Formats: sequence, C-alpha cells, structure tokens
Amino acid sequence: MDFRPVFFVLGILLSTLAASMVIPLMADLSAGHEDWEVFAISAAFTLFVGVALMLTNRVPDFTLSIRQAFLLTTLSWMVTAAFAAVPLMLAAIDLSYTDAFFEAMSGITTTGATVIVGLDTAPPGVLLWRALIQWMGGIGIIVLALSILPMLQVGGMQLFRTESSEKSDKVLPRAAQLATWIGLIYLCFTMLCAIGYHVAGMDWFDAVAHAMTTIATGGFSTADSSLGYFDDPMVELVAIVFMLMGALPFVLYLRALRGDPKPLRNDTQVHWFLTIVAVAVCLMAAHLWWDQGYPPLVALRLAGFNVVSVITGTGYATSDFGTWGSFAGGMMFFLMFVGGCAGSTTCGIKIFRFQVLYATADAQMRRLIQPHGVFIAYYNGKPIPESVSVSVMSFFFMYVVCFAVLSITLQFLGLDYLTAMTGAATAISNVGPGLGPVIGPSGTFATLPDAAKWVLSAGMLLGRLELFTVLILLTPGFWRK
Amino acid sequence: MDFRPVFFVLGILLSTLAASMVIPLMADLSAGHEDWEVFAISAAFTLFVGVALMLTNRVPDFTLSIRQAFLLTTLSWMVTAAFAAVPLMLAAIDLSYTDAFFEAMSGITTTGATVIVGLDTAPPGVLLWRALIQWMGGIGIIVLALSILPMLQVGGMQLFRTESSEKSDKVLPRAAQLATWIGLIYLCFTMLCAIGYHVAGMDWFDAVAHAMTTIATGGFSTADSSLGYFDDPMVELVAIVFMLMGALPFVLYLRALRGDPKPLRNDTQVHWFLTIVAVAVCLMAAHLWWDQGYPPLVALRLAGFNVVSVITGTGYATSDFGTWGSFAGGMMFFLMFVGGCAGSTTCGIKIFRFQVLYATADAQMRRLIQPHGVFIAYYNGKPIPESVSVSVMSFFFMYVVCFAVLSITLQFLGLDYLTAMTGAATAISNVGPGLGPVIGPSGTFATLPDAAKWVLSAGMLLGRLELFTVLILLTPGFWRK
Repeated sequence: MDFRPVFFVLGILLSTLAASMVIPLMADLSAGHEDWEVFAISAAFTLFVGVALMLTNRVPDFTLSIRQAFLLTTLSWMVTAAFAAVPLMLAAIDLSYTDAFFEAMSGITTTGATVIVGLDTAPPGVLLWRALIQWMGGIGIIVLALSILPMLQVGGMQLFRTESSEKSDKVLPRAAQLATWIGLIYLCFTMLCAIGYHVAGMDWFDAVAHAMTTIATGGFSTADSSLGYFDDPMVELVAIVFMLMGALPFVLYLRALRGDPKPLRNDTQVHWFLTIVAVAVCLMAAHLWWDQGYPPLVALRLAGFNVVSVITGTGYATSDFGTWGSFAGGMMFFLMFVGGCAGSTTCGIKIFRFQVLYATADAQMRRLIQPHGVFIAYYNGKPIPESVSVSVMSFFFMYVVCFAVLSITLQFLGLDYLTAMTGAATAISNVGPGLGPVIGPSGTFATLPDAAKWVLSAGMLLGRLELFTVLILLTPGFWRK
Repeated sequence: MDFRPVFFVLGILLSTLAASMVIPLMADLSAGHEDWEVFAISAAFTLFVGVALMLTNRVPDFTLSIRQAFLLTTLSWMVTAAFAAVPLMLAAIDLSYTDAFFEAMSGITTTGATVIVGLDTAPPGVLLWRALIQWMGGIGIIVLALSILPMLQVGGMQLFRTESSEKSDKVLPRAAQLATWIGLIYLCFTMLCAIGYHVAGMDWFDAVAHAMTTIATGGFSTADSSLGYFDDPMVELVAIVFMLMGALPFVLYLRALRGDPKPLRNDTQVHWFLTIVAVAVCLMAAHLWWDQGYPPLVALRLAGFNVVSVITGTGYATSDFGTWGSFAGGMMFFLMFVGGCAGSTTCGIKIFRFQVLYATADAQMRRLIQPHGVFIAYYNGKPIPESVSVSVMSFFFMYVVCFAVLSITLQFLGLDYLTAMTGAATAISNVGPGLGPVIGPSGTFATLPDAAKWVLSAGMLLGRLELFTVLILLTPGFWRK
C-alpha cells in the first residue's frame, strides 16, 4: 500500500490543528495566563510535523483507494487526538499524557468524558481548547459520514450514498465542497446557540464554549457541575434545542436551505428519533414525579434535559441521574446506545439502524407465519437491499461484541460491575458520563487506572468511527496484497 | 383458527403430567410424608382437565398448521408450568401460587432459579417433583428443537432441518418416533449420571434427583447450597461431564449410536463449544489463581465447575462466584448469554448462532476491503443461505431487545441495577442464579416482588422457546385471517 496520500492528508490535518491552537493561545494571552506559551509551543510542534508530512509525502496524482481511505480515517482521529493532547499535558492543569490523551480523544470523538477536576478555575485557553476540539470532532464526523463512510459501505451507511460519494477518486474534492456547505450551517448553528446561551444569561466566553460542545453533541463544560452550574431553565432549553438540532441529519438542513424542506419534514429517521425522545422524556418525567416525588414541572425539566443529553450522546448533566432510582439508571443505560440520526454529530447505534433492524425483524416474523409469502423490509419508503440489512445487522452484532469485550476488559482491570458496564457503554456510544459514584454525572474518569483510560479511549474511537473502520485494520486480510 | 388439535395435544400433555405426579406421590408415601395427598389431588385434577380437553377436542383428521404449531408450542410450556405449580403450591413448603408458578416455570424451562429456602429439609416428593419437571423440560426442548422449530424456521433453526421435519403434516408422528430414540438416549445418560453421582458418594435419592437436573442442564438441587453442599471433587467431575453432554446436540449421539460417530467428532458447533468452554475455564482459573490468590488446583476446580455450570445454563454453584472479583462477575454475566449447541437441553443464544454471526460479519469485513469480491459465509462446511443469516441476526437483535426490556421492567419494579441486569440475563438464557447478594448463587429469588417473578417467568418462557415462537403470538398478523 502507498502510504503517501494518507500521510499527506494527515499533514494537512495537523497543520489545521496547529492553526486552531492559535485561538486558545489568544484567549490565554488576553487573560494574561502563562499557558499561552504552551499553546505556542504545541502549535509550532504540530505545525512542524504537519508540514513535514506534507512535504515528504507529495504525490503527483492524488487518489485514495478504499484501503487508504480506511487507514486515513482511523489515523486521522488517532493522530489528531495524539497532538491535541500535547497542550493539555503541558498546560497548568498538569495532566499526565495518558490523561491528556483520554481528554483529547474524548473531545475529538465528541464523547465528553473528562478527567479534569477543577474546571471552574481552569485557565480560559484549556477550556476553549477542549471546546474547540469537540467542535472540530463534530464537523469532522458529519463530513466523514456524508462522504467517506457511504463509499466504504460501513454498517449500512451505503443507504446514504449519493452521487457525490459514488466514485472513490472524487471523494476528497466532493467532500471538500460538501464540507464547506455543511460547515457553514454548522457554524451558523453554533453562533445561534452561543447567542441563545448569552441571552439566557451566560457570559460570552461560557456561551461560545458551550455552544461549540452543544452543537457537536459533545458535552465538555466549563464547570465541574456541567450545565447544572448555571441552574437556569432558559439555558437548559437552549441546550435541548441545539442538542436535538445536532442530532438530526445535517444534509437535510442543507436541502431545506436550498429550498426543499420536505426531506427534513418527511424523513422517517427524524420522526422516529423525535418520537423516541418524546416517549423517553415522558416516561422519565412520570417516574420522577410518581416514584421519586418531584413536583411535575421539576420532573419534566430534569427529565427533558438529561434524557436529551444522554440520548444525543452529549453528556451534559444538571443532576446525578444515577441517584434517581434504579428505573432511571436502567433507562439511561439503554438510552446511551440509541444515539441520533446518521449524518449528525451523535454517536451510538443510531436511529436508522434500529429502523432497519426493526423492519427486518418484522418482515422475518411475517415470514414465519406465512412461509411462502413475500415480505420486504422498507426504510424511508424504499425497499431495503438485503446487503444493507446484513450490513446493519453485522454492525449491531459487532457493537454488542465490542461492548462486551470493553466491559470485560475494564472489569479485568479492576473496575466494578456498574462502572465497567456503563463506562464501556458511554465510551463506545460517545456519551460522556456513566453511572455510579465513580464515573457518574457527578464524578470524573480521573481516578480510573491508566490502562482503563487507554481502553476507554480505544472504545471511543471504535464507536465514533462505526467500528468496522477501525476493526478492519486489525484483520490480516487488510494488510495482505 | 381451529383450536381443537391444539387443545387435544395439550390434553395429552396434561394427562402425561398427571401420570408423572405419581412418582413424587410414591416418594412421599414411602417416606411417610403427608404431602402424598397433595400429589394425589393435583394428579387427579390435572388428569381430569387433560382428559376433558382430549375428549372435547377430538378431530377426525389430525394435522397441524404452522399457526397451530406456534400456538401449541407456547401453550404447552405455559399450561405445563401452570399445572406443575399446583402441587408445589399445596405442598408443606407453603408457596404462594406466584412462587409455585415461578418455580414450575423455572423447572420446565430448565432454568433452575428457585424461590424455595430450606431445600435441605424439604420432603422428598417436592424435591423429586422439581427434578422431574426439569427433566421433562429437558427432553421436551430437544424434541421441539429437532422436530417443530426447524419447520417453523425460528431464529435460523432451519439449518437443522432434516427430511423428518420437512412436511408440516408429518410433524407429530415423526416427532414421536424421534422422541422415542432421543428419549432413550436421554434416559440412559440420566441413569449413567445417577450411577456416577452414587459412586462419587451421593445417596441414591440425591443421585437420581441431581442426575435428572444435570442432564437437563437445569440446575435444581436438593440442597440450599446447591452442589457445594457435597463439597466433593468427584461429584463435581461427574456433574461437569454430564452438563457438557447435555449441552451437545443429541441427534449426533443418535447418529453415533447408529454407527456413524463422524458427525459428532467433526461437528464445528461441538468444536466451538468445547473450545469456548476450555478458554473460559482457563481464563477464570488464571484469574482466581493470580488475582484472587487461590491455589492453582483449587482455582481450576472452582473455575471448571462453575464456568461449565453457567455456560451450559445449568446453574449449580459450589461457591458464590459473585464474590470472585469484578472480572469473574463480568465474565459470568456474558457467559450466561452463550449457551450450548442447538438440539441440546441448553438455552442462551447458542453456539451455532455465534458461528453464523461471526461468519457473516467476517464475510462483511472482507467485502468492505474488496467491494467487488464475492465472499460467502460458511457453517459446518456449507454456505449459509442469506435467509438463515438474516434469521439468525434478527434473533440476536430480538434477544438483545428482549433482554433490555426485561431488565428495564425489573428496574421499574424496584430491583437494583445488578439484580435487574443479571436477573434478566439469567431468565432469558435459562441459567438459574444471577449475580449479587439477592439473586446470586448464595441467594434466592424468594424476596423479589411478585410482579418481578411474573416478569422473570415470562423471560424464561421467551428464552426457552427461542423468542419468536412466543413473540409471534403477540403480533396482530398472527390472529388475522
């Protein structure tokens, strides 16, 4: 395999990453915090490596084969996390490289799990950097899901193949074009969200930092107690609206802006998603009201915010939902796996896969009753090709297997059952907090053993890149001629 | 739908059940325990209902349609549990009907979860009855898996379709013929096992009672501390051998006895199963030795017995493996789902499904690397038809969904996370104990709320009948003309 195109693109990515480090640099400079030097050094180092990669790996005719595309995708996230971790390690908050890498991977995968205690007093540069890598991770995954994954046919993503992702040799220019449009929408939403937060009462710094992690359904906050710090229903309302917007397919926004709002209105994935959210919020609110004795409006506020936060994989919290009784904990655990729509910033199994799984299982049941009947599963009004069904079902199987392996490995490393199970779930689904006293919404991942942090980082990467993109690199067949 | 053939067969079943109540009746009579009257009354009542059903539902030309076969299968297990519960409710151990039904369902599904405290002092009739319904549940499921399920094409069972299960109108006579042969093998194994237990030191009563629940991979014991009561390596060795024998496909024994041992030796399902067991035992023993500080031989003995007991879904215990550290607990949790081979007495997802899932996911991965290549998944050397892949994958998906729904429902009823998760797992996979202080190997299900017992009973039935057989009755399409 020719690694040059892969390394060349990684070089571009790292140079961009270096450029983006200027933003926290400025923030620390203007706040008079010495961490600006850290960002300057990290930016210089990252830029050096990036430019070196670009210069040494130029190819006359740039194309990407399928294997190269797989390798590039996985390496992009890994390398970005590795370099984004550098300033976090050097900064005044004083993290080990393991902790810094965990934090950076949690950022770039839009997970939102944190190892930092003392966010409330952290310098602005670090806070902004965390928000920024999550924001970049968010737009990165949308572009990936729109351009590369359908071509790679990962986990049923071929359902979303368009003309623009048909030919492998056109992937990068098309991706760039699409990324520009989607990026503009993403930027607009972020600004709207920041304005919303500011109007709701946040200062501009918090508003911008949270806007970036809200639209990315990431969940990094500038306070240890997450959005609960602000304790403001308006702030939570803004968060709910933009978390939900981040969980819908961005390509449908683009179509709506181009004058065709029908796909957004009629998309069954959007309908299913909003229905599931509504049902889950109602169930949770009813539980909080009847079983836990909260007044109805308080119950609705708590349920609405925290359920949306978990199902979209954002991971903000306004309360430790692990203490809401076992039903709430169990529901949150399973909601972690759900996720949002394909082509959004959310992770998890995703709604369209549940639709395909449900439609296939339903057709299966009908066939059992009438073995000679012909029963076809439909998605969004179109018959689902058998290959897509099998692809989605393989994805589901591998998701469960990866979850089980992660969970057992974490237990092998000494984590208790609840921490290991919910840690594995929250990592692979890129949610953020788990359940229980250690990694629950009121805890952090700081106290876990280093090995567990690396395992969880691997889980986040796996989940973010739809499993197969990473797993395929581990098969001997990938490396064989 | 014509219910008469269904009710007619249920009548036969109930009459047989009534006849089998004579065995515990004799046991109590010879022990001079007054419970013999309970069995006499229950037998008379059950026989009355059975004969009444037979007399009122005679049909001139006996055939079963597919719908009737589905209904009959589910009703058989439900009705048998309902009537087998009667003597348990009336007996001196004094159970409520909920408890008695839970115990009977746990028996007939070969689960082995118990609500009875004080087995060591219980009268012989009750102990024998519990063993007997588990024994009958074991042979029942083998016959079902060989004759009815392949015809119904449930969860990929069509892989095991033979000439004898091809035509729906021949199901019952063929099933009877097959049942006779398999039943004889089953009986022989039980006798061998009882002799083994007796030689190892059990008295004849305990040996027979345990032999019946060992070969059925059921797990009911005559002591509260299960097989740990005997604390004898020879007893455990006998148990391991016969639990494993109960977990292999019985039809292959039949072929071996007819002079063709090759299928048994070469069956990939058998190879996979024994390999998984060996790996799991070694991992667990290593963990007990290195991490928990047990001497190597003790570690091997504990691991060997308890891992085999859990993976085969038997559910005996010689130690509370919930206290072996979090790795052991996590491994046991996931092992619960594995199960044994198709056509055995074990439950769970079963090995052949993992083989099909693995082969399909593997072909999927190869296809991702070479989108234009042709990759076929194989099972036992033969290509897997696409319909079987989809069938197995739908089964896996529904298994996870049913597990999640059971678990959330149990948490809704107030059970804590660990009890609810492992309770749902142990019920749907027909294992027996869960993890934790409540339902772990050293606890019982007695203290759970009544509603939880009904939910768990439903879970056992679902898992035992391969989900779809039961779920299909809940679809409106089943009842529509």
